[in-house]
Amino acid sequence: MLLRIGYDIQFEFPASAAMVALLHVHPSRSADLRAADDLRTEPTIATDPYVDSFGNRCTRFLAPKGLLRLTNSTLIYDSGLPDPVSPNAREVPVQDLPHDVLKYLINSRYCEVDRFSAIALELFGGVPPGWSRVQAVCDWIHSRVVFGYHHARPTKTALDVFTERVGVCRDFQHLAVTLCRALNIPARYATGYLGDIGVPVSPTPMDFSAWFEAYLEDRWWTFDARHNHPRIGRVLMATGRDASDVAITTSFGMADLRHFTIVTEQVPEDAPVSPDANMRR
Amino acid sequence: MLLRIGYDIQFEFPASAAMVALLHVHPSRSADLRAADDLRTEPTIATDPYVDSFGNRCTRFLAPKGLLRLTNSTLIYDSGLPDPVSPNAREVPVQDLPHDVLKYLINSRYCEVDRFSAIALELFGGVPPGWSRVQAVCDWIHSRVVFGYHHARPTKTALDVFTERVGVCRDFQHLAVTLCRALNIPARYATGYLGDIGVPVSPTPMDFSAWFEAYLEDRWWTFDARHNHPRIGRVLMATGRDASDVAITTSFGMADLRHFTIVTEQVPEDAPVSPDANMRR
Amino acid sequence: MLLRIGYDIQFEFPASAAMVALLHVHPSRSADLRAADDLRTEPTIATDPYVDSFGNRCTRFLAPKGLLRLTNSTLIYDSGLPDPVSPNAREVPVQDLPHDVLKYLINSRYCEVDRFSAIALELFGGVPPGWSRVQAVCDWIHSRVVFGYHHARPTKTALDVFTERVGVCRDFQHLAVTLCRALNIPARYATGYLGDIGVPVSPTPMDFSAWFEAYLEDRWWTFDARHNHPRIGRVLMATGRDASDVAITTSFGMADLRHFTIVTEQVPEDAPVSPDANMRR
Amino acid sequence: MLLRIGYDIQFEFPASAAMVALLHVHPSRSADLRAADDLRTEPTIATDPYVDSFGNRCTRFLAPKGLLRLTNSTLIYDSGLPDPVSPNAREVPVQDLPHDVLKYLINSRYCEVDRFSAIALELFGGVPPGWSRVQAVCDWIHSRVVFGYHHARPTKTALDVFTERVGVCRDFQHLAVTLCRALNIPARYATGYLGDIGVPVSPTPMDFSAWFEAYLEDRWWTFDARHNHPRIGRVLMATGRDASDVAITTSFGMADLRHFTIVTEQVPEDAPVSPDANMRR
Repeated sequence: MLLRIGYDIQFEFPASAAMVALLHVHPSRSADLRAADDLRTEPTIATDPYVDSFGNRCTRFLAPKGLLRLTNSTLIYDSGLPDPVSPNAREVPVQDLPHDVLKYLINSRYCEVDRFSAIALELFGGVPPGWSRVQAVCDWIHSRVVFGYHHARPTKTALDVFTERVGVCRDFQHLAVTLCRALNIPARYATGYLGDIGVPVSPTPMDFSAWFEAYLEDRWWTFDARHNHPRIGRVLMATGRDASDVAITTSFGMADLRHFTIVTEQVPEDAPVSPDANMRR
Repeated sequence: MLLRIGYDIQFEFPASAAMVALLHVHPSRSADLRAADDLRTEPTIATDPYVDSFGNRCTRFLAPKGLLRLTNSTLIYDSGLPDPVSPNAREVPVQDLPHDVLKYLINSRYCEVDRFSAIALELFGGVPPGWSRVQAVCDWIHSRVVFGYHHARPTKTALDVFTERVGVCRDFQHLAVTLCRALNIPARYATGYLGDIGVPVSPTPMDFSAWFEAYLEDRWWTFDARHNHPRIGRVLMATGRDASDVAITTSFGMADLRHFTIVTEQVPEDAPVSPDANMRR
Repeated sequence: MLLRIGYDIQFEFPASAAMVALLHVHPSRSADLRAADDLRTEPTIATDPYVDSFGNRCTRFLAPKGLLRLTNSTLIYDSGLPDPVSPNAREVPVQDLPHDVLKYLINSRYCEVDRFSAIALELFGGVPPGWSRVQAVCDWIHSRVVFGYHHARPTKTALDVFTERVGVCRDFQHLAVTLCRALNIPARYATGYLGDIGVPVSPTPMDFSAWFEAYLEDRWWTFDARHNHPRIGRVLMATGRDASDVAITTSFGMADLRHFTIVTEQVPEDAPVSPDANMRR
Repeated sequence: MLLRIGYDIQFEFPASAAMVALLHVHPSRSADLRAADDLRTEPTIATDPYVDSFGNRCTRFLAPKGLLRLTNSTLIYDSGLPDPVSPNAREVPVQDLPHDVLKYLINSRYCEVDRFSAIALELFGGVPPGWSRVQAVCDWIHSRVVFGYHHARPTKTALDVFTERVGVCRDFQHLAVTLCRALNIPARYATGYLGDIGVPVSPTPMDFSAWFEAYLEDRWWTFDARHNHPRIGRVLMATGRDASDVAITTSFGMADLRHFTIVTEQVPEDAPVSPDANMRR
């Protein structure tokens, strides 16, 4: 399956400001790219690519005063298979986890693991460990938290989601990540493209999506407490401890969002590489 | 100047549990060590040393049920000079910061940078940038927050410190780190040994201390919002985004602290390598 | 000046539920009413009027399963004068305050006075006490908090407003009330009708408004940290410690809001008593 | 049974400050008093008694600069019976509650009812309503929250107790009150004397105690989520929405506590009225 992915994001900068963008396909998917994955800017400015400490491809630049447009459109091969499911995947005892996985067990800005120890154990201590326990966390959240775009706010934490029971996709995942960590299951936040492939087309404009990964057996597995069923066509962009680590763009100074269009769609195998008309909206 | 540093920490584990300890001298000080810096355990158990993603020396192990004693006593050379002061150190524009410094500008569990943007600018926006601004943050906190051991609690954040105005050393530094980051100055939490050298001896038992580092000009500089004057004889153990990243010990299961003694003292240049009697209390 | 005021509020109750409504003109304005101020229900159900401990007229009832419509339309005389301003009004020392005013100095759900002691003193301790200090609180909030309907949420406290700097009218007043109390100035939350009289007509649908009252000299005075200039035609409905005490409706069970229309408009002196057509939307 | 109750509380005031004290026996127990219940001050200053809006006896005064001593010692008759238990007490539907009880269903500073709706229903929705449900709340808290004096802090809310699982008696009751209200059961915070009568004598110094009352059937009943068994010899001083409403003393200005002794003890029926020697410590 071939997917066209891309974005057209425009900011107005009242003054020059540094910006960091995580607007590339994750290195783990580089081999699947069928075209260049470059961040283009209008006007053309100097950009500085690097890989952050979580392994994500980043671009940083000094945005000049005025309007800045960030665009990209590329093609990526996808297996067309849904997220893998492995009900027998074992939980790894903490002492046997790889060193670099340990950091996904502790606190982060939106994941107050220290405040969920008792709650997590009370809710899920009776569920068999491993895949079924992570799935139980997802089921619990999916059935109790109500989705709504107007419930988004930048300071919302897992505890806020647990008490308010409303949120956007990032909120569902923050609560799931926090509960998993409180159960000593490594979990990290993930963000990327997720088109409406194999599901009814959503009436709302496309946005980037958030899901999470849990470490079981010997690898990271995709879970999604919001949708809570295996999906086709996720394209990972970045993983981190929570949304703070993997904000699509972080501006160190004022930046007013003026335009935001995301494209994620299946295209014919012989689709041309150039951006499609939809991006010009 | 020669310092003896060490600890005797004892836990009772009601059941076997994994533990991670940051109980070594930081690699940046390895060359100053005059004796081995090994974590000894009683009973002797297998331990697994590694370096975490922040560059800290860590040791992990599976603690058996029962009492576990962690000890160390080593010697380290110290210049005897107080923390360097460099009033002309410039603030580095975000776009010019090294890639790996950027992560010290964003949110972490105890440092809610996103909630301090307006507050930080109102309090310190009028202070000249660079060293003087970081110093102004330290002065402000030092004069307004009251120290008290009974004000410690594991879930206390920078915002709690800002409103309650009481805390222990970690709380002072969390608030300072958060305000610096909100001002676009990279700041990280530091922990280590800090003896009463060149200052009156404290009547309370020795503990590990927390301070913080701010990135100015071309390097990290030591600041300490609690003591707020240059000190002699700090021995760095670990740095991270906040106390969550550099907890002295993190236990994944129940662990009751039964004994806790820290030694940090100046010794004669010809002091023997073996642990001193004080450690046997 | 004659004002027509009223509402048409409709709820769908999935099951029978008790409800308390504060949908009457405040007793302090009863003499100004030119028509009955009755809460009508469709279907007609038994309602029980009473006065709560803050002196507000309340109505309680058991809403049946299904749609319930609450309407009212009445006429009230208004002086047409803007909110009184009295720059020389003195602050009353706490020891001289009337007994029943003391409760407006302490904490309430959305007003964490205990967390604002230091902050309030730092920001306003240098302003002369009395009217000018309350006005300084309003000026500060008015210039630093940005209004936006999408920033409303039921759990938002004064501290949230202080850090997030965005909110709806209730949020502006909660922060003002909290800062006043922290300065030992009694303050209470007020809610009622506020039409666009003497000001440009707002393009958004009419809603009830929130303001606050501060006790100075020998009485309560109206302040409004959101609009921050004297307004014509406020019709007080209720006062309390914060929005929890004076929610327009409180439902003890599920209630889905289906329709919400408020009318506040100047009418000719000979306007008929019956509801105007606008209410039928 | 005859009880001697009293206190010796001393504050140092760096400057004159207004103070409100709730240091009297509650009016509901006035008939049981066997001696005067007067707040004495040293030096002798003017005091102003009144009854607050919750029905509690209060005293207010302007404390002069310097040391102020508040003392009292009186005798009160007590039935000697433990707190009444009435397992069949019904829950009253909200629509049938007395008007003045409704206010004990809503939010207050330390009782964020709005954040506990879902949690309370999930934990206790399956327990039969009425006495058994309130008792289930007490059992849950009693078995999951650990008591410790060092866990006290003035800003701690029910949500903090729910996540931290440690606290002092006020914390246990705040969580219980909040859960009851979220279940539509009126609950209020209570404070008073509670001696070690019929139980082993506590080694810690006597303090005032907190418990709570829930409204069932046709009256308020005493519950205590900390001790969680019927006690003998409670002497009620005040009730309110939470600890903010019934602080033993509230100072509007600096006040340093210098001495704090409470007496609650059973005495012979012919005990003299004058204060006992213990008060002179």
